[in-house]
Amino acid sequence: MNLTHIEHIGIAVRNLEESIAYYENILGLKCYAIEEVADQQVKTAFFRIGDCKLELLVATSDTSPIAKFIEKKGEGIHHLAFATQNLVESLAETSQKGIQLIDQKPRAGAEGLQIAFLHPKSTFGVLTELCQKP
Amino acid sequence: MNLTHIEHIGIAVRNLEESIAYYENILGLKCYAIEEVADQQVKTAFFRIGDCKLELLVATSDTSPIAKFIEKKGEGIHHLAFATQNLVESLAETSQKGIQLIDQKPRAGAEGLQIAFLHPKSTFGVLTELCQKP
Repeated sequence: MNLTHIEHIGIAVRNLEESIAYYENILGLKCYAIEEVADQQVKTAFFRIGDCKLELLVATSDTSPIAKFIEKKGEGIHHLAFATQNLVESLAETSQKGIQLIDQKPRAGAEGLQIAFLHPKSTFGVLTELCQKP
Repeated sequence: MNLTHIEHIGIAVRNLEESIAYYENILGLKCYAIEEVADQQVKTAFFRIGDCKLELLVATSDTSPIAKFIEKKGEGIHHLAFATQNLVESLAETSQKGIQLIDQKPRAGAEGLQIAFLHPKSTFGVLTELCQKP
């Protein structure tokens, strides 16, 4: 697999506005985009830092995966997303090597990316996303 | 605050060898260093990706912060470390703005870095490390 960089780090928050204010006013980062991803029932806020991004995620419904995560573990880092140059090949290779996939094929994520998740049971507890620019 | 990039992402694991094998054989990254940090009761393994690193952390005793984290939350992403150009100034600024510090002043971390942690109660659940090259 040819992973080029960490595309983003997903962070589950209860309140998007308060969390954005923390990252802007305390850490000095700048929120450059807010986007709703309807099929994941989340609203996201993005910050660039180095060659990576932070993605804050707030649930837009009680049945959102983010709502369930916060209920179980509290606010905090939710997932780690790696950039790959060929998502279909990466998924095939990962699956062949015995890793459990959450998404069998790429689907649309925030920022126009094609994305797929690996199951944390196969990845030593880290909810892992692979993503590719369109 | 002038954060330049994400220095590393800390990941708590139960078994360092098995976890290294996953990151090498499945994700194709290369472990370039293993280091014990005695005062934190951890052994660490490092991987470079883009301008960032992954730091796997395994407890070397039952009283290690990593052992406690895994007992409470399971294996997974433990902390997020930002690179700052002036750690003392960054800590002073952060504290002045009302953020609770775990480390009031810099201390020695892995890889010769000067490091300090912010308390996750002040940072929306993300255990946050600031670090500076010596």
